[in-house]
This record gives sequence, C-alpha cells and structure tokens, in this order.
Amino acid sequence: MNDKGRVTLPAEEGLESEIATIIDRWGADAVRDSDGTKLTPEVKNMANKVYSKYFFTRGDQEWAKANLDERQHFYLMSEPVTARANHVDIPIMTGYFDQQVSPDTDHDIKTWWEVIDRTTGETVAPEQWTYEQDAKVVTVLEANKWHIYTVSFLAYQLWDPVHMYNHVTNKWDTEHHIPYDPRYPKTRKHIIKHLKKWLDEHEDTNVVRITTFFYNFTLVFNDAAQQKYVDWFGYGATVSPLALQAFEKEKGYKLHPEDFVDEGYYNSPFRTPSTAFLDWIDFQQRFISELAKECVDIIHDYGKEAMMFLGDHWAGTEPYGKYFKNIGLDAVVGSVGDGVTLRMISDVPHVKYTEGRFLPYFFPDTFKEGGNPVEEANQNWLQARRAILQSPIQRMGYGGYLSLALKFPDFVDRVEEITNEFRQIHLKSKETSSYKAPFKIAILNSWGGTRKWMSHHVHHAIWYKQCYSYYGILESLSGMPFDVEFISFDDIKNNGISDDIGVIINAGDAYTSWSGGEAWLDQKVVSTIKEWIDQGGGFIGVGEPTACEFQGRFFQLSDVLGVQKEIGFSLNTDKYNSLSHEKHFILEENDNPIDFGEGMKYVYQTNQDTMVLDMVDSDVTIAANQFGSGRSVYLAGLPFSPENTRLLLRAIYWVASKESLMKKWYTSNVQTECVAYPEAHSFVAINNSYDIQQTTVWKEDGTTVEITLEPMGYEWFEI
Amino acid sequence: MNDKGRVTLPAEEGLESEIATIIDRWGADAVRDSDGTKLTPEVKNMANKVYSKYFFTRGDQEWAKANLDERQHFYLMSEPVTARANHVDIPIMTGYFDQQVSPDTDHDIKTWWEVIDRTTGETVAPEQWTYEQDAKVVTVLEANKWHIYTVSFLAYQLWDPVHMYNHVTNKWDTEHHIPYDPRYPKTRKHIIKHLKKWLDEHEDTNVVRITTFFYNFTLVFNDAAQQKYVDWFGYGATVSPLALQAFEKEKGYKLHPEDFVDEGYYNSPFRTPSTAFLDWIDFQQRFISELAKECVDIIHDYGKEAMMFLGDHWAGTEPYGKYFKNIGLDAVVGSVGDGVTLRMISDVPHVKYTEGRFLPYFFPDTFKEGGNPVEEANQNWLQARRAILQSPIQRMGYGGYLSLALKFPDFVDRVEEITNEFRQIHLKSKETSSYKAPFKIAILNSWGGTRKWMSHHVHHAIWYKQCYSYYGILESLSGMPFDVEFISFDDIKNNGISDDIGVIINAGDAYTSWSGGEAWLDQKVVSTIKEWIDQGGGFIGVGEPTACEFQGRFFQLSDVLGVQKEIGFSLNTDKYNSLSHEKHFILEENDNPIDFGEGMKYVYQTNQDTMVLDMVDSDVTIAANQFGSGRSVYLAGLPFSPENTRLLLRAIYWVASKESLMKKWYTSNVQTECVAYPEAHSFVAINNSYDIQQTTVWKEDGTTVEITLEPMGYEWFEI
Repeated sequence: MNDKGRVTLPAEEGLESEIATIIDRWGADAVRDSDGTKLTPEVKNMANKVYSKYFFTRGDQEWAKANLDERQHFYLMSEPVTARANHVDIPIMTGYFDQQVSPDTDHDIKTWWEVIDRTTGETVAPEQWTYEQDAKVVTVLEANKWHIYTVSFLAYQLWDPVHMYNHVTNKWDTEHHIPYDPRYPKTRKHIIKHLKKWLDEHEDTNVVRITTFFYNFTLVFNDAAQQKYVDWFGYGATVSPLALQAFEKEKGYKLHPEDFVDEGYYNSPFRTPSTAFLDWIDFQQRFISELAKECVDIIHDYGKEAMMFLGDHWAGTEPYGKYFKNIGLDAVVGSVGDGVTLRMISDVPHVKYTEGRFLPYFFPDTFKEGGNPVEEANQNWLQARRAILQSPIQRMGYGGYLSLALKFPDFVDRVEEITNEFRQIHLKSKETSSYKAPFKIAILNSWGGTRKWMSHHVHHAIWYKQCYSYYGILESLSGMPFDVEFISFDDIKNNGISDDIGVIINAGDAYTSWSGGEAWLDQKVVSTIKEWIDQGGGFIGVGEPTACEFQGRFFQLSDVLGVQKEIGFSLNTDKYNSLSHEKHFILEENDNPIDFGEGMKYVYQTNQDTMVLDMVDSDVTIAANQFGSGRSVYLAGLPFSPENTRLLLRAIYWVASKESLMKKWYTSNVQTECVAYPEAHSFVAINNSYDIQQTTVWKEDGTTVEITLEPMGYEWFEI
Repeated sequence: MNDKGRVTLPAEEGLESEIATIIDRWGADAVRDSDGTKLTPEVKNMANKVYSKYFFTRGDQEWAKANLDERQHFYLMSEPVTARANHVDIPIMTGYFDQQVSPDTDHDIKTWWEVIDRTTGETVAPEQWTYEQDAKVVTVLEANKWHIYTVSFLAYQLWDPVHMYNHVTNKWDTEHHIPYDPRYPKTRKHIIKHLKKWLDEHEDTNVVRITTFFYNFTLVFNDAAQQKYVDWFGYGATVSPLALQAFEKEKGYKLHPEDFVDEGYYNSPFRTPSTAFLDWIDFQQRFISELAKECVDIIHDYGKEAMMFLGDHWAGTEPYGKYFKNIGLDAVVGSVGDGVTLRMISDVPHVKYTEGRFLPYFFPDTFKEGGNPVEEANQNWLQARRAILQSPIQRMGYGGYLSLALKFPDFVDRVEEITNEFRQIHLKSKETSSYKAPFKIAILNSWGGTRKWMSHHVHHAIWYKQCYSYYGILESLSGMPFDVEFISFDDIKNNGISDDIGVIINAGDAYTSWSGGEAWLDQKVVSTIKEWIDQGGGFIGVGEPTACEFQGRFFQLSDVLGVQKEIGFSLNTDKYNSLSHEKHFILEENDNPIDFGEGMKYVYQTNQDTMVLDMVDSDVTIAANQFGSGRSVYLAGLPFSPENTRLLLRAIYWVASKESLMKKWYTSNVQTECVAYPEAHSFVAINNSYDIQQTTVWKEDGTTVEITLEPMGYEWFEI
C-alpha cells in the first residue's frame, strides 16, 4: 500500500543479513552510523542513502591532544563558601568532576576570574585574593566574616560532555574526547582541512550528519560523574578569552565573568535574559553560522547533503535564530521526545527537509531484559503523530545499536506498522497543509520566536515538576489545528500585535522569562495588550501570568483576567470567590475533576463579573472574564492530557469569541482527534488512546460521520 | 474543694433567680453587662464586683449627632479603574457601604485626597482631576489610556464598625452608633466631662470595663454589608486632618494618603512596615496613651478599677507597645480564641491582673436549635488550658446573653467544671511560675516584641489558609515549657542577640513581615545571626524563612539551613535530595505522615551534609543541619496538633543542642502534657484529647510516673 522510504536505519557491522530484512520491513531508504558504530560497504549498498556522522570539534582527537591550549572552555562558579573568619578559602573544584573540567591558569586569572561577595553582590578586588594552584583554592585575604563568597573561574573542558554521557551510559572504555575550539585560527583552519580530508575519504556518504557544529549545549557533571548542570539551550561552552576579546571589539563593551555565571543561574532560559547575554548570543550565533556556512559550502562542493542534528554541539545554531538561514543546511534531524520536540524540528525554516529520530533510542537502558521498548515506542508515536499531522517532518528514523533492537521482535513488528503509518500520512496529505483555525495563537514570553516550541524546557523533553503544568499547553498545541507563533515583549513593544493573532497565551511562574517578570511593568507592553484585548483579542493566562508585584498588583493584568493571586499582603481584604453555576462553554465536555498539575494556590476573583468556572480548596483554578470586546481566561495549570487538550481548545475558541467555528474537523470523543487536508481532499481520524474508541467527526460543512477506531488506530477518509 | 471567685458572669435584666443559681454553680464573683444589656440593682448585689462597660467614643450618641464634623475618619482607596479612554471616571464609593462611610468633602479634597496612576505609581496632579460630589465620581482629565487609577479619599465613619457588626449579627433594630474623634479639642473635653458624669451615675460599678478607648481596629464593610477589610491590629480608623497636621508638627514631615492606603494593602501587619507607618503608630500611641491615662486617672479618682478590653477600640493601646504602661490600667480582659490569644492577654505587662473571656460567646449564632456550645467550650478550654498553665490569666468569664446559655443545661454543667478547674490551677500552682527550659525561644520577624503573640494573625483567632501552617507554631508554643520572646530585625541590628536566647524561629511566606523580606539583605542582621548560630545557637526556619531573592539565593540563610527553594531560575541545576536513613532525634516519636498544612514545594538540599528528615513528592519538608557549633532545622509548615507540638519540642531541643534536657516534665503520650510548679511543689498532667489516655510522666529528677487521664482530664500531684 505504501511506498518505501522516508526512514533512516541505524546500522552496525556484523549484522548484514538482519539489516537487509529490517530495511525491507521498515522500508528504510537510508542507513546511518552512530557514536561507536561503523557501516560496512555491504550495508551501505543496501540503502539509497548513506548518512555518516561527523563531529567537527571532537572528531580528531590527535589534533585535540596536540593542541591542548586550544581546548574549549566553560565559565564555572565555585560552590558558595561562607567566611567563618576574616579570610576564607574557596576550593573552586568542589562539586566538579576533575575528569571533565580543569581551571585555566594559562590565561591571567586576575583578568579572567572574578571573586564575588554574594552577601553584598560586590566584586572582590583582584589584589584581595590569591590562588593556590596545586590545592585549587582561592583565598580571600580580607573577607567580611559570615559573608558568602564565590569564585567565577574559567575552566578547560577535558572531556566533551556528550561523549562523556555516551561513555558513562554505555559503560564504554574509550579515550575521553576533548573538544577543541574553532575560535582559535589554528584550530579553525584545521577543522576545514580535516573536513575536506574526511569528505575525501567518505565517497559513498550521501548525507553528512553533523553532530553537530562547534559547541555543545551546557552540560557539566559533578564529582560523582552525575549531571550537575544542564541547559539544552545554553551557551556556557561557547566562552573563551579569544571570543571575549572579539566580543569587546565587535560590541564595544567588555563582558565580565558574572555576565556568564549570572549569580550561579548561568543565564538559564528561565531567566529573563540580560542585554549582555542577548548580545553574546547574537555575537556567537554570527560567528558560528559563518563558520558553519563555510563548512556546509564545502560539503555541498563534494556533492553531499549537510544535515544538522538538533542537539549536542548545536549552541549558536538555533534554528529559529537570526543567522540560521545563512548556514545553508539541507536538513535538520532531531530527537522526538513528544509533540513539542517534534514541532521544534518540523517547524524549522530554511531547510529542504526535516527528520525525526524516534524513541526509544536503541541503548541498553531500555533494550534490556524486562525492558518494554514497545510501550515507549507507542507513547512516543502517539504524542508525535498528532504533531506530525499538523506540521510534518519529512523523514523518520531511529538511533543507537540495531543489534539491541533485534532482540525484541515485537518492537520490530511495531516499528514496521509505525513506519507504514508515517509514509501514509505523506501519501494521503499529499504534503499539503492541514486545516487551521482562521486565527493564530501567540505564546508570549521573554524569548519569543527565537525559541519557538522551546519554553518551559530544561533538557530535551525531560519532565520537571516545575514545568509540566505549563509545558502541557505546548504539548496540547503541538497537535491542535492552530498556527502557533511565539512572540516576545519586545515584539509587542516595537511592532504591536499582528492582526492575524486571535489569542495570546502567557504561562509560567512569576518572574521567570516565560511569565515575563518586569516586562509587565512596561507601560507600552501592557497598554498595547490591553487595547488589543479591548478590541476583541483573547488572552489566556496560566499559573502566574503577567506577574510582577507593583503598586498593589501581583498579576499586572488583573483587570483583564478578573483574578489576582494573594501573596500575603492583602490577606486583610476579604475574598468572595463564587463559582458560576451555569455550565460554561469551556467546560461543556468536562464532567470529572480537572487535572491542573501542580496547580496554583491563592488565586481569587477581583470582581463580581469574573466568571469563576472552577475552584480547588476555595481557590480559583479557572476564570473567564470579559474586557471590552475581548475576553480572558485564567487557568491554574494545564498538564498534557486528552481532556486538557479539549479544555484548551474550548478556552481558545471562547476567548477568541469564535465559539461557532470550533466544530470544524472536531471529534466528539476527546480521546480522538481529526485532521483535515482540504487541498488533498482527505482527512484522518486518530485514536490517541490504548482502547478502542467511537467518535463523531464534524466536517467543515457541519455534517458528521461516526467512526470506530482501534487502540492507537487511525483511519483516512476522502472529503 | 475550690474557693469561689475568679469568674465574671454576663448578666441581664429579668433573670434574677437564674443568675443567683449560676453565680453559685460557676462560682462567679463579678457580674457584667454587655452591649445591649443592663444590670438590675438586685443582680449587682449578688456579686462582689460589678463590671460596667464603657464606650469612650460612641457612648454618647447625642454628642455624636450634634457634632458631625468631629466624626472619626478612614482613608479609603477606591476600587482600581482601568482608563478606557483619555479620561477616566472613578466612582469612589463602589464596593463600600454607604451606611458606614461617606467621603469627607468638608476638608479640601485637593489637599487631602490623592489620585494615583497605579500602572506607573505616579500621583496625578490635583489640577488634573475633578470630583462630582453628587455622583461621588472622580474624573481624571488627561488619563493615560489603559492605565489603572485609584483615588485615596478621606471618609467620615457614619457607623461604628463594632456596633455595626453586633447590630448585623444580632439583627438589632437600633440607631447606628457614630464614632467621634477625641483629636478634636471640643470632643476631647466632652469625653472627659461625659466620663465624670457617667462615673457619678454609676456608684455601684467597681470595674469600668473600657470597650475600649478611642479608635476601633480597621473594619470596613462592603456594599452588601459584608466584611470588606479587617485588620485587628490596624490604625486605619485613627486618621484625621487634625491628627495629620499634628503629626507633621511633631515628626517634622508630612504624610500623604498613600502612607495609609499603601497601594491598597493599608499597612497590613503582613507588610514589612514602612518608616512612615511606624512613625504614625508611635505618634498615635503617644496621643492615645496620654488621653487614656487622663481617663484612667479619673476612674481611679472615683475609686474604681479601669479594665481595658483587648479589642474593638484598642488601636493605639497596644499592650506590648512603648506607651502602654503609662496608661496605668488595672486590668486587661480579652477574648480567648485559642492558646495564642490567651497568651496575648496573659502576657500583658504593667497590669495587676488579666481576664479571659471564653468562647462560645452567648450569641444566637451558636446558642440556637441544633447548636453545640459544649463542643465549642471544650475545644476552647483545651487550647486555652495549656496556655494558662504556662502563663495564667487571673480571671475568666463569658460574654453575651445569659438567657441564651441557660437554654443549654449541659453547657451550664460543663462551665461549672471548667470554672472549678480554672480555680484549681491557681490554688495548686500557688501563682508561681511553671517550669521552663533553661533557654528562651525568640520568634524573629519585622514587628518583634511590639506584636507579641500577634504574628500570622489577620483577625482575632480566625483561620486563614495562608496562615495556619505558621500560626500553628505559636499555638504549640503557647502551651509549651519555654519562655517565648518576639524580636525584630532592628533588635538584632541594634542590640545583637541576647545571651539567654537558645533558639530563633523565623517563619512565614516570602516578603511578608513575618519572614522579613529585605531585612535579610542587611549584612549586619545576617552576620549577627550567623555568628550566633556558629557559636551554638539554634535556628528554625519554617515555610519561606530568610527569603529574599538576591545574588543567587532565595533563602538568604541557605548556608545555615542547608536547603534552598527553587523558584525557577536554577531548574537547570540538578537536585539530589536524599532522605537520611537513620531515625533522627526530631522524628523519634513520629510514625505517621506529618501534617505540614499547606506545606512548601520545591525545597531542596544544597549540600550532602544536610540531613533530610522528610520529603513530600521529592521536595524537602524537614531538614536538619549543623553550622559551626550551632544547628538549624527547616520545616515546610507546622499547623497545630499534638503530634506537631511534640515535633516542635524535639526540633527545639535538638537545634538548641540540649536534647538531654528534654525529658523533664515530659510525657510519653503526645496527647498529654505535664506542667510543673517547682516552687509550689506541684505538677499537673493534662489530657488534650477527647479520649482516655495513659501516659508516663518524666519528672525533673528523671523518675517516671504512670498516669491515666479521663477525656479532657487532668490530675494534680505533689512533687
């Protein structure tokens, strides 16, 4: 029924006959190697395309070892130490892994390091501290007793963090890969030379799978070799004396260690970004994109495709950044953790195609005795499928060691089904756009479009207690019939709100970049949003939206939202939360208690007109409000679930004052969804659950059709 | 067995024979009238002492009506209004009750009112707004569109708030009492004159029960006659143009309406107090105490006692304030809501005796068909008894309408038992001090000793979801064998930490006065506390102690506490909370899940030495840490219960490094407690539960005795 193709298989030596079978069953048209595997000529001949991984800054360890002064760096902050006397010793490596990082004393430490009194925030003068190199201890000579001190120090990277992760996870016994820094002209030149050499040697490679460019996301380990700090979007590994000097020359001002260390928060994406950090991102993105373009041009000169892995050494190549298009990549491949990470890949602009690497990864953590890879594959596929239907990746694949997967025949069977289903999506949709509501959704935060689908995200698709109640909104949206934009406060300030936006969503904990913090004290931002709502816009606030305590208000848009959060200062003011008795449009399909995830305490209605739709322990958890011709909805939290996706759908249509448009390609059963491709004259109904489901589909013309779907099933129809 | 006496009975007309019986059964030696009742000569003759209520500023309504220009005031803030055009109308009375307050336009509104742009915090120039007196609408002439505006206006009090409360609660049909202001020389003179006249007319009154002095606590009603704003400790009703002018003269600077309105928070005790507000408190306390002294001196001249009710018009007479002793009162009587409010009364200094008015109040809300006054009386007595044993009130009594109580014979029986038990405490303890641990507990907050037993308190003993998890600490302490002090950050800054303090407790939500907010950025405060802990002090932090986000730390004393709270900025740093496996001293008697009340999310251990004693959903809820020679304990919350009282006892002894001293007058059964009076050679074991309990008592010498106690029972022993 389906064409073969669109599937990439991780191959390895010694499995030639099994690979032939799998290629046939999964319809693979490409084979790839992985970290630690090689492809034989026999295997390469089985597929149309051969992908070969390429490591730009750790692929040549001979070079690394011969040029240790050109290793990559981190700026690290020591553990804070409390002065118990009038001098204080700070062992800077406490808590760090000495196989991963080592203090850089080759560059003048009095220039490049910084000691800070964290009780006052003042920098300690360089002559007021000394460093004992053997013991790796900084001593503050005239400390203020009981104050807390930290040292921000430049450190060499001794071990590439992803190589280390793979090494530890797979219990390898290999030489540690050292990352080298292309900021150094000598290394930069070598990288180009080495690439050409490699390309010369890989004639039968069709696709250079760049894993990735030059700097890894920030990933630091502790002294027990456990993860200590991880920022999948971080620029921690891009720092070096050379880069800092170039920055000063280019931007006209000097950065200090504190601009990177950021009180120990290291410019986490949850922080509202500083100007210095945004300038650094811009500076590095430009440098990295320029060098990346040079490399990609060479790859093209060799007649090969350049495919970038979305992850690992991807710092500075942000696909939604200003300079990404200049790189000229053919494709991006990324790991699919869920719907959000699928969209992060599939929405990438300026490439010919995108590819998703599905879970589970063929690693021994899942593919072990008692492991259940089918369950992981099903969950992964169900979350990804919704997103693919709204914004397709063109190819899919798997990663890791095929030998492990082959030990699980039911997994091999299930992947055969999934790959067939994947190809059918492309066949039936004819690669046309799915039906979308006639208005856009905008997610408003401090990062905006440069971090599309990346909010509330610490590390790739990893669950965090503090995030899932917000991340659920993105996960729901990833498979919903809406065009979704990510906009920043600066966008609104500088350009207003685009006419095609129907609903703005602001979600997050107070003072994080996702909620916005002090951006909500900007009169222009606030007034522009209120005017837009007043004229008919819809505003959804989740958790602690618009929060920044000022002038008697914690939620700055409490006049719009009709609710406020009690943070203790107004306990003396009586609250009269009163549940609306009428069934509201938003809750028409909700009969069970709503899952707000971590929820939000102490939210109360500020005026009698606010419609309180739900309360938990007397606190408001859902409120709806009218503001001029516009509307707002407050939600205490919204983890991902079929029920919450439906609740969000209803909240969006209600807040946009477009309730009458909701039942187009709409299903009666919340466990099911329906996606239409008007130009392809087709639609598909999907079952997101593990049970058989019956559902009614509302077509665009208002007619309905009754459908029964197998567990996890789907069915295509003609319009 | 017991002497009669120590009990005050609320009497009323027409119940003479019943009163005689009750006086005998309850052992009452005093009778009192209430708001709305009178005593007949016959009743007065039955008791040793006659209490007569006296209202200083609402007792003469003829005066009030003849001097409407000398009524009391409030500063009120209008509801915030969002400007939807370039001018905005603000109906200032929206949400207020027009029978309680009326805008004061007799004083120049351009001088005494203030319009504020709450989006920017800027005051609108007086020429930029107008007031339409009939409609009661302020118009801002050139408003910033979408900004939020409020009007702070001076309002006359048309109806005394306590009179209104009694009126509404009892469904009275009486004339509304208008409060008049003794700041006006004419009214002040009249108050003295009226007092003398009243004293002349009340020859058989022994005790003038002052209810109370001049200004009620802040109590404002909404347009549905419901409570809108209540601050039992508030100074909202003390304001007037005259007082403000006097303040300026005395303190040398002018106050603005915003100094009272405070962004709409009205200087709630939960706010860290501003200098202006503290100056105002000082200014009014001095004025009020001087006039109160003048009145008390007159009462004494008539040979009568002056007893102040702790409540109602008690603003400015704070018993732990600087000027209270000057008033020269004989006694203070207050309503006993629980152990904390009992201690608030019994610890009052500078009076000859204190009296507690127990619950339930004989009002129709409890004494109605189906009501259970015995249950309320039992709960009230059990919580009060523990506190009385540690710090006794000298007398007890009841309030309300005796006729209602007489309809419940089981209630009359139970009060007979309670009054006997109360007298026995005095008999057996011989009014000597109970055994206390050899170190003091200090509760540290922004208010310190001026608000002893008053933290985490909105209105008299009323439960608030945001408070009970902290208030429970006070309630536990109210009946524990510790001397408890309340100290402020200024105390520590100016005087250091007294040698006799063994444990400091800081408890509250971030940025409230109870936690301390920016006080934790004061180096001297922080260093003094750390040094004290380092030298052996004990520090207990509850909820969000020492919290003020600065320089990478939310809990500023995280180095002492060994824990930190994640507020989103350091999500990228991995947390490794690890439960200590050894049973810790603090939890030796805990086998069941601990009730942390509202608890606290996202607290994590900052270093491996921190002992994590309890976690809920992976968050730390109890941690213990060593800091130098001192110790700290973190608790997520501690609502009042027998189990939590025991947990606190253990935490205190552990953190003070005095574990070996704990088992002195200690009971094995947490439902029981034991209080010793070494000088009286007696001790009592009490059962705080409604079931029979067996317990072992550890005497001071280490010997033990087995005791069985009836439900709610007690037993006295000789040492």
